Amino acid sequence: MVASQEPPRLAHRVTVVGGGFAGLYAARSLGIDPEVRLTLVDRRNFPLFQPLLYQVATGALSPGDIAQPLRSILHKQRNTTVILGEAVGIDPDRREVLLADGGPIAYDTLIVATGAHHTYFDHPEWAAIAPGLKTVEDATEIRRRILIAFEAAEREADPDLRRAWMTFVIVGGGPTGVELAGALGEIAHDTLRRDFRAIRPGEARIILIEAIDRILPPYPPGRSASAQRQLERLGVEVRTRTRVVHLDEEGVRVTGPDGTAETIPSRTVLWAAGVLTAKFARTVAAATGAATDRAGRVIVEPDLTIPGHPEIFVVGDAAVQPWKPDHPTPGVAQGAIQGGSHAARVIRRRVLGRPYEPFRYSDHGDVAVIGRLSGVTNIGWLGPFGQQGGFTAWLLWLGIHILYLIGFSNRIVVLVRWAWTFLTHGRGTRLITGSELLPPIGEPEPPVMAPLDPDEVVAAGD
Amino acid sequence: MVASQEPPRLAHRVTVVGGGFAGLYAARSLGIDPEVRLTLVDRRNFPLFQPLLYQVATGALSPGDIAQPLRSILHKQRNTTVILGEAVGIDPDRREVLLADGGPIAYDTLIVATGAHHTYFDHPEWAAIAPGLKTVEDATEIRRRILIAFEAAEREADPDLRRAWMTFVIVGGGPTGVELAGALGEIAHDTLRRDFRAIRPGEARIILIEAIDRILPPYPPGRSASAQRQLERLGVEVRTRTRVVHLDEEGVRVTGPDGTAETIPSRTVLWAAGVLTAKFARTVAAATGAATDRAGRVIVEPDLTIPGHPEIFVVGDAAVQPWKPDHPTPGVAQGAIQGGSHAARVIRRRVLGRPYEPFRYSDHGDVAVIGRLSGVTNIGWLGPFGQQGGFTAWLLWLGIHILYLIGFSNRIVVLVRWAWTFLTHGRGTRLITGSELLPPIGEPEPPVMAPLDPDEVVAAGD
Repeated sequence: MVASQEPPRLAHRVTVVGGGFAGLYAARSLGIDPEVRLTLVDRRNFPLFQPLLYQVATGALSPGDIAQPLRSILHKQRNTTVILGEAVGIDPDRREVLLADGGPIAYDTLIVATGAHHTYFDHPEWAAIAPGLKTVEDATEIRRRILIAFEAAEREADPDLRRAWMTFVIVGGGPTGVELAGALGEIAHDTLRRDFRAIRPGEARIILIEAIDRILPPYPPGRSASAQRQLERLGVEVRTRTRVVHLDEEGVRVTGPDGTAETIPSRTVLWAAGVLTAKFARTVAAATGAATDRAGRVIVEPDLTIPGHPEIFVVGDAAVQPWKPDHPTPGVAQGAIQGGSHAARVIRRRVLGRPYEPFRYSDHGDVAVIGRLSGVTNIGWLGPFGQQGGFTAWLLWLGIHILYLIGFSNRIVVLVRWAWTFLTHGRGTRLITGSELLPPIGEPEPPVMAPLDPDEVVAAGD
Repeated sequence: MVASQEPPRLAHRVTVVGGGFAGLYAARSLGIDPEVRLTLVDRRNFPLFQPLLYQVATGALSPGDIAQPLRSILHKQRNTTVILGEAVGIDPDRREVLLADGGPIAYDTLIVATGAHHTYFDHPEWAAIAPGLKTVEDATEIRRRILIAFEAAEREADPDLRRAWMTFVIVGGGPTGVELAGALGEIAHDTLRRDFRAIRPGEARIILIEAIDRILPPYPPGRSASAQRQLERLGVEVRTRTRVVHLDEEGVRVTGPDGTAETIPSRTVLWAAGVLTAKFARTVAAATGAATDRAGRVIVEPDLTIPGHPEIFVVGDAAVQPWKPDHPTPGVAQGAIQGGSHAARVIRRRVLGRPYEPFRYSDHGDVAVIGRLSGVTNIGWLGPFGQQGGFTAWLLWLGIHILYLIGFSNRIVVLVRWAWTFLTHGRGTRLITGSELLPPIGEPEPPVMAPLDPDEVVAAGD
């Protein structure tokens, strides 16, 4: 292996751990710099467009539509090496990142962009019962559970068990929880309307549970109220000031605003609450003595580096990126994109020996979509026009998400799928995949199936 | 639940087991018939467009692109009930199909359309080593293995192990094996060309093994030779009259035409040989005393019913559908579609008390695609024009597959993805998903990684 071209001497070695929004925007921003040698380490071979993951979970999109191979995104960057591997440790003195399987990677500057995942706080045993939504596997598992629940209800003769199969509880009223609830409302009342014979999907109960006094806490109260109205129009019960105290395969036990407890029988509980940074960021904090907050996010300097370690950046959801006093950058895609880009800018200017500015988050606003043709926005720089609900919010959401989708082919595919979903009220990718293909039967002795005689069933379905 | 309309008395109850091409075409054909009450039973909630499954395995399409939910395909058929369930037994006297979990389903006429899957003959232990290609899960598993192999090679320092990671063996030279080999050749020489730094994907060895004296046995010998030339142009080694005698994680042991044995070190062996009908068809044969062939296919009467049981049809890959003397209908999509449609036609005419014809397979010809812009066809009714190779074959293949893809939105999505793949030489859905995300390391003590120093690596990649 002979070099066809002599590489520049003493190039600055930048290692990026994590290929999500923050890591990818840092890598792309440094990719054209001949002074920099870039290594990107990720456990997965593709970055995921997280804001659309709930659409995979609800059958509107395929996993491939919202992901693009990391190597193909970065293959034009001649200064970049991609390593599929898991970073498990750091030696800040020797400036090396340690991998689970493979030799250490040396760096001159390190960018930690490992993001966050959901957490069940003190109840790790809830993970198996109530899946969260962070990975492609989570999304196809949630899709499987939602579709299987309707299938099981169709076959269940016992009215109580049937009701439990048709009750969906979503824990957490943030953007993910709200969007999941809206999509579920649409599925029950619209998509599946004509698909079953023994059940009416429109009779499904969809319950959104939030611990504080309103949903969508990052938005102003007026927007939260608008979102709640729109969800209720889709048949979603919104329960604020309600806490989950127990969770098992039979259902959820909650305490309401007045402290009274209630058990909701449900076979499908989805988790959209609680965020914890990935382990590597916490490992780096421990090795460098940096402080973390309750969610494990690393407290960084105004330039996003670790105190005393100007060569280590922590960006995106792994860090408490400063913004307003007592108000860090929100954990949204824009925060990660801007954090990653900032780290790259600082590195470039340092390499050139130039001064640089601290990180400043520029709030482009938030948009959440609630089912078909409706949503809420909160876009500060548009003034009063930035506070939209309903159709305008939905249109804005559409444009913004298409704009940020990486990979041109995916943009077209997603547009086609959305156009189709919109025109036909269908959801094309409602595939039940995985190992457990058939719904478990609720009782030890299987009851006589409801749709036994096709004659009866057709009549009932009319 | 009150019927809004009185169902017709004494409707003829038809139960279809299996929702592949054969079952689905039977169900759709009977779906408008008010004299019939139809029940379709399938283990999966979606039919799969099998002819394009290899494209999922090779990252050109997503699983959702080639599948459509069964309920949404059939939801307009008011006389049809879909049951997600596994048929495990039959009582031919009481005319009932038994399900694994749930009460029996009564029928007046039964259509068995449960298809076939691959088999490892007397070596079930090979299944874990060399995955076959029949389900969506198979396809994503094969995709994972192919992509992981290149990733592992990129990280492997030992040249022998690296070579084993970059050697791909495909067992079976039928259409699936040929199309897989062609797609792999394209991936290695084109798609991944610029994606790695330490390895050259173009140096991958792709070996296609076939036991008889030529690949694509359903085609005339001239077409087989053309396919072999086209594969060789893509860098695929074609080995005919070669048998696999042993398979393990280290590689494949084969015996060649002259009887000499050879071991091919390979970490990725794919299985495209051996077909066995699904168990339910064999259960039905045993319960009714019908004969089966070596592959477990049920020997049926000229009208596709079981001897002595005119009320039980066996169609598609589950049956030996008659065609020419000593030459049954080939196990392709067209055979299944025509078999299912025939059963529906006979049932309709019987209900009306009219006479009906025996099954006659109409050969529309075969098309296989071999990588980019090339393929082979064998289309009898086009005369000499039906024997095409190269680009014409590729275009024909494109048109035919788009035509038969179920679900209009999927057709557009597939077209967009193909156009993109064609224009950019990329494959958008190269996602490594599943539980084992990282490649296992070949040696107990991990060697120093090849791309340790980014400087070196960039030079090597030029």
